[in-house]
Amino acid sequence: MKAMDTRVIKLKNRPKGRPEISDFEFDKTEVCSLQDGELLLKTRYVSVDPYLRGRMSDAPSYIPPFEVGKPIESGIIAEVIESKNKDFSKGDFVSGTLDWKESQVAKADGLHKVDPEKAPLSAYLGILGMTGLTAYLGLTEIGKPKEGETLLVSGAAGAVGSVVGQIGKILGLRVVGIAGTDEKIEMLKSEFGFDAGINYKTTENMTKAIAEACPDGVDVYFDNVGGEISEAALFNINKFSRTINCGAISVYNNTEIPKSISVQPFLVKKSSLMQGFIVFDYADKHPEGIRQLTQWLNEGKLKYTETIREGFDNIPKAFLELFDGKNKGKMIVKI
Amino acid sequence: MKAMDTRVIKLKNRPKGRPEISDFEFDKTEVCSLQDGELLLKTRYVSVDPYLRGRMSDAPSYIPPFEVGKPIESGIIAEVIESKNKDFSKGDFVSGTLDWKESQVAKADGLHKVDPEKAPLSAYLGILGMTGLTAYLGLTEIGKPKEGETLLVSGAAGAVGSVVGQIGKILGLRVVGIAGTDEKIEMLKSEFGFDAGINYKTTENMTKAIAEACPDGVDVYFDNVGGEISEAALFNINKFSRTINCGAISVYNNTEIPKSISVQPFLVKKSSLMQGFIVFDYADKHPEGIRQLTQWLNEGKLKYTETIREGFDNIPKAFLELFDGKNKGKMIVKI
Repeated sequence: MKAMDTRVIKLKNRPKGRPEISDFEFDKTEVCSLQDGELLLKTRYVSVDPYLRGRMSDAPSYIPPFEVGKPIESGIIAEVIESKNKDFSKGDFVSGTLDWKESQVAKADGLHKVDPEKAPLSAYLGILGMTGLTAYLGLTEIGKPKEGETLLVSGAAGAVGSVVGQIGKILGLRVVGIAGTDEKIEMLKSEFGFDAGINYKTTENMTKAIAEACPDGVDVYFDNVGGEISEAALFNINKFSRTINCGAISVYNNTEIPKSISVQPFLVKKSSLMQGFIVFDYADKHPEGIRQLTQWLNEGKLKYTETIREGFDNIPKAFLELFDGKNKGKMIVKI
Repeated sequence: MKAMDTRVIKLKNRPKGRPEISDFEFDKTEVCSLQDGELLLKTRYVSVDPYLRGRMSDAPSYIPPFEVGKPIESGIIAEVIESKNKDFSKGDFVSGTLDWKESQVAKADGLHKVDPEKAPLSAYLGILGMTGLTAYLGLTEIGKPKEGETLLVSGAAGAVGSVVGQIGKILGLRVVGIAGTDEKIEMLKSEFGFDAGINYKTTENMTKAIAEACPDGVDVYFDNVGGEISEAALFNINKFSRTINCGAISVYNNTEIPKSISVQPFLVKKSSLMQGFIVFDYADKHPEGIRQLTQWLNEGKLKYTETIREGFDNIPKAFLELFDGKNKGKMIVKI
């Protein structure tokens, strides 16, 4: 096979604080020739996610940092253009963690086929992918919600948050969401069935607003944001409450270590639990999660929202928009 | 029976910040006459504990606050002087939560007999009482320690901390203790078998000191203190680490809500757990805990230290000394 070139997006610099377009570099690179067992893939949908910000720093974290001068990778849906692997055929679609390249050769490990008949391809990056699994497994494995309890969700209009809230409703909880525009709050209630919503940008006293929206206190807090919103949540947690620390987007771009009120006295007083959740740690539970999510989706119990940008050139920009809260639901770039 | 008077210590004022002697009031009160099922008790040993500070404030907590003008109560070993309850006889010793009175009439619910033949009476307030149970159940139920892991203990020379470390050694962990004098550090190592100790009062960079004492990182952190020491611990936690939030003595006397670095990003990065522990929540596990602790004590595997003050008049003073770290191990007042 003749060597061909493809476009690639690399990490140019490690961002200081908020990432900028200039932290990314567009380049060309050769597509290697196919070896036995490998696939030639054409990128169709690219997932951009807040957690990628962490991989742009070189601080130790749950997955290795990106290397400067090397391609960035994220969740991608690709089409098989050519296959030297008996389990995959030309025309199949696969999901996996792949480079930000228009075309690439990849080994089949870690890739799995997705069926465009059962759900739109982009859904496999969201509600039926890491997003849905994060919502479902974070809520059930750490949150251990019980019918009649109150669930508070921050970043509720985001990809994960909107699914968390819907699952909370399916499981019989009172669900309160926090988001940053009135339009998002309206969407949480009318489209996703949240019982109440709080616009943190227009609310002066978040502690009081949460108390009012959660008259029986907060039993489960699904925390996507950290920072001041999570401080306000602490004042409202119930005895034996569980907090899923799923993300801290409000502080990811801080260049200094953020300070907030000490959680320890609250945890002691309330026999309360906080636990970090990373979907990759629960790989053995992914098949069951996908099965449950697909069932709810087919039953019409789960809705999802996507914000789709178009074009390979716009991947970095779409990523940056996450930090302005410009997305409703899952942010995806269609190539 | 003729009415008799007894001395009593009441809460005079809710302390602002650090409690003072003037927050306590010595008074006299009548000992009620014995009803059916009740016991007349003479106080022998009084436990003073940091958590009592919380009950002196009127903020909601895991147990109701003390009332101003009413007796303070804590763990007490008392002798039965007269009994109208078939399960108890004159001369028995009982353990329970009782008023700070020289003599009192009490119902038998919540009191249980203790045997001075099996262990010294004061041990039932410490190693075989709430102290030992807090160490054992906090460490095992939340910490879930595994052989070969590293256990970090703050407030390590305190009543709970010194037992936590010893149990850690019995279970095959590397155990590192943090305390506030060189003498205490020496005691942790020579008497209680800790592998290493850190004097936080003479150590400039606690984060570095913990890293050096815990070369494989911290898997279980038994946190008795909160505050800056717990910040330093955060920088050293391992993936999947567990923190038992047992107390926060460093901030109990703060009049403003204490701030510290945000724990959320650490928990997210490390898939780490923090959970508040209150021994009262685990009442169903107390019998098994006492059985295990008694066995280890009889096998010579557990040692305990007490600081015993004498005299009813000295109860408040002994309590205040806790906040200066004047105690080694369990602080008890013998009447």
